Amino acid sequence: MTAPIKINHVAIVVEDVDVALKFWHEALGLPLQHVEHNEDELVNIAFLPLGEGEVELIAPFTPESGVAKYLAKKGAGLHHLCLEVEDIDAALTQLKERGAELITEQPKVRPDGTRYGFVHPKSTGGVLLELYEKALTSS
Amino acid sequence: MTAPIKINHVAIVVEDVDVALKFWHEALGLPLQHVEHNEDELVNIAFLPLGEGEVELIAPFTPESGVAKYLAKKGAGLHHLCLEVEDIDAALTQLKERGAELITEQPKVRPDGTRYGFVHPKSTGGVLLELYEKALTSS
Repeated sequence: MTAPIKINHVAIVVEDVDVALKFWHEALGLPLQHVEHNEDELVNIAFLPLGEGEVELIAPFTPESGVAKYLAKKGAGLHHLCLEVEDIDAALTQLKERGAELITEQPKVRPDGTRYGFVHPKSTGGVLLELYEKALTSS
Repeated sequence: MTAPIKINHVAIVVEDVDVALKFWHEALGLPLQHVEHNEDELVNIAFLPLGEGEVELIAPFTPESGVAKYLAKKGAGLHHLCLEVEDIDAALTQLKERGAELITEQPKVRPDGTRYGFVHPKSTGGVLLELYEKALTSS
């Protein structure tokens, strides 16, 4: 049996990253690592490291993005939870065998080599759950 | 300037803790520390440790609880994010000085000595944010 090893990040959907940073960075004091302009998802993402994980602030930059539609429908707030696993193939297989509904049957790969997949909120009690397997940094 | 040191927990509101544990504990594999029957908040809470933090599953056991009303209105899903701070007085003072709206002006204290307070979602970009200062275990 495999199990997640830590909370990788908590993602928050906001209207505007700069406005949200006034709270999360300037008032609360979380360090700001960088802001990414992500053309694949049509969002800006601010990364704020915190302990062994991080907080991510996500804001759409066009009304066409999926996140813009989510924001219009549900409003700003907690969007998804991402847990880190050592072996995402084993984790997704185990979840499927135990009846969970996966959004991502086969892991996808980010440019930095991170492999990831999503579990449907139907199976988790309403939470969009992401699983991450980080790329090995040495080989 | 003070800043949070880690994610203490992510709280998820569910209809039924036992049903939710079938996913989070049995399928996903998170260890179950214990389930608390909390008469103050009228909820059952399952604690699932994960890395330096934990996932909490919260379910009302009567329709009178505040969480039952939240569940009826918003549905199951991510409920709040709790970050750990070293000095909650300093953290709340800093937030207030920088214009954040606090739900808890003065920290409250749990039976185990944890001191905590909440920041209003208006200030955070839609997230109910809890801050925790853990009790010292040695003195």
